[in-house]
Amino acid sequence: MVRTVFVNGEYLPESEGKISIFDRGFLFADGVYEVSAVINGKLVDYAAHMERLGRSLKELRMAWPCTRDELDVMHAELIKRNALTEGIIYMQVTRGAADRTFNFPKGEVTPTLIAFTQAMSLVSNPNAVTGIKVITTPDLRWARRDIKTVMLLAPALGKQEAYEKGAQEAWMVEDGFVTEGTSSNAYIVKDGKVITRHLSNEILAGCTRRALMRLAKEEGVEIIERKFTVEEALAADEAFLTSASQFVMPIVEIDGKRIGGGQPGPVVRKLRELFLKEATA
Amino acid sequence: MVRTVFVNGEYLPESEGKISIFDRGFLFADGVYEVSAVINGKLVDYAAHMERLGRSLKELRMAWPCTRDELDVMHAELIKRNALTEGIIYMQVTRGAADRTFNFPKGEVTPTLIAFTQAMSLVSNPNAVTGIKVITTPDLRWARRDIKTVMLLAPALGKQEAYEKGAQEAWMVEDGFVTEGTSSNAYIVKDGKVITRHLSNEILAGCTRRALMRLAKEEGVEIIERKFTVEEALAADEAFLTSASQFVMPIVEIDGKRIGGGQPGPVVRKLRELFLKEATA
Repeated sequence: MVRTVFVNGEYLPESEGKISIFDRGFLFADGVYEVSAVINGKLVDYAAHMERLGRSLKELRMAWPCTRDELDVMHAELIKRNALTEGIIYMQVTRGAADRTFNFPKGEVTPTLIAFTQAMSLVSNPNAVTGIKVITTPDLRWARRDIKTVMLLAPALGKQEAYEKGAQEAWMVEDGFVTEGTSSNAYIVKDGKVITRHLSNEILAGCTRRALMRLAKEEGVEIIERKFTVEEALAADEAFLTSASQFVMPIVEIDGKRIGGGQPGPVVRKLRELFLKEATA
Repeated sequence: MVRTVFVNGEYLPESEGKISIFDRGFLFADGVYEVSAVINGKLVDYAAHMERLGRSLKELRMAWPCTRDELDVMHAELIKRNALTEGIIYMQVTRGAADRTFNFPKGEVTPTLIAFTQAMSLVSNPNAVTGIKVITTPDLRWARRDIKTVMLLAPALGKQEAYEKGAQEAWMVEDGFVTEGTSSNAYIVKDGKVITRHLSNEILAGCTRRALMRLAKEEGVEIIERKFTVEEALAADEAFLTSASQFVMPIVEIDGKRIGGGQPGPVVRKLRELFLKEATA
């Protein structure tokens, strides 16, 4: 089946999904994005993603590309047209196409809106059974990681480094402390308590992170929001990550050192189960 | 006249200059670029730009999109087809289009190559007569500013801030020291000596900076390579910037404070003259 993508109001075969070479997303990374999971043909935690999109746009003084209702229709249509039962929908908004100047284009410029689907196994992701390996790498990113922009070259390089070292994710480290994964938030568990970095400009406020906080609270699992070092992580009982497409994913190795005996631990297994129960309800 | 642009081997009207929404330049800022000036229909300092392009590609393990000869032909053709006598040629290479994954795409992916011209007055730029105003702003960028990537959102925001404050450029500041401008290198002059930040991962090795160093040496103007503070800049006799399209540009105001009595000083005027003499020879 040829994938149908969305580009500025049109549904097109993916080979025809194109934007101008003058698009500021392409020339300046002047764009933001969201990724929403789909399970059983239904969006997971979608409202939270759209809320964050609104914040990203506001922080960059970028216009909404359309109404929220139109975004809802776009997501629904992409699921339908691609017969997507499980996977993700990626959407990106940029400041639009204009002759190249560093400063914002003068006059009215129409924001660019594109979206596409990726079918993938999320609920039965085999990595969740075995747990994954992560490496640590210096955090090279800019100072506004709280905005979900396409300024993603450092995370891309980090993920590539992880793959080349036989791992599936890289935890980025700044001043000895883990900030987050290249496309996920980072957690460790010690003595039954979950530790994850507090929100600031230094990390992205993950939608799955937020859902996890709520579920953990309901379950009586304590989550401490503070930064933690690589050494603490290596000495943790468990480690895991959250992301929109991986949900709650156990980590069983950091920089080649086994965590929790190399098996997903009880806390992360419980939290993943809680998340999936709600997401598939 | 409709501008002719270059996209992956084809010369097209600018409205048809398009790339895939799956291009990694668009999704991950996984791309690098160069801007070469054109005077009297001839490229200025072009070899230096192509040398730096090679370094950028190498640092990111990105393939050359074509041979150096083919790049030369592309530049010449764009000048010819657009009857460009004075202005710039912008060129960008990305890792190419592939289904979205943070890590590099598996298998062979063809790099994307696009280029376009912008006609503008460079030699007789009126700003060079009056001098320009700059503001200072925190340097929010990532850690690999030595690579000329399209990770440009922070510089774009800085330039926009400058425009809104009635200035033409923003000098980015880290730990109290000026790193560089959003699209230029930064210089001050004190007691006849030029001071500019030394090269490192913290700034871009400007091609015009390199040319200036050579010209200054030939002329017997001393250039000291070290970082300088905002306070030093405010107390300087002169200030200026260099870039491929602005050459050597006097600065007469920093954060609202006049520099050198608000007039371009003798050192910057001399250096601009030397640069133009060579570039127009």
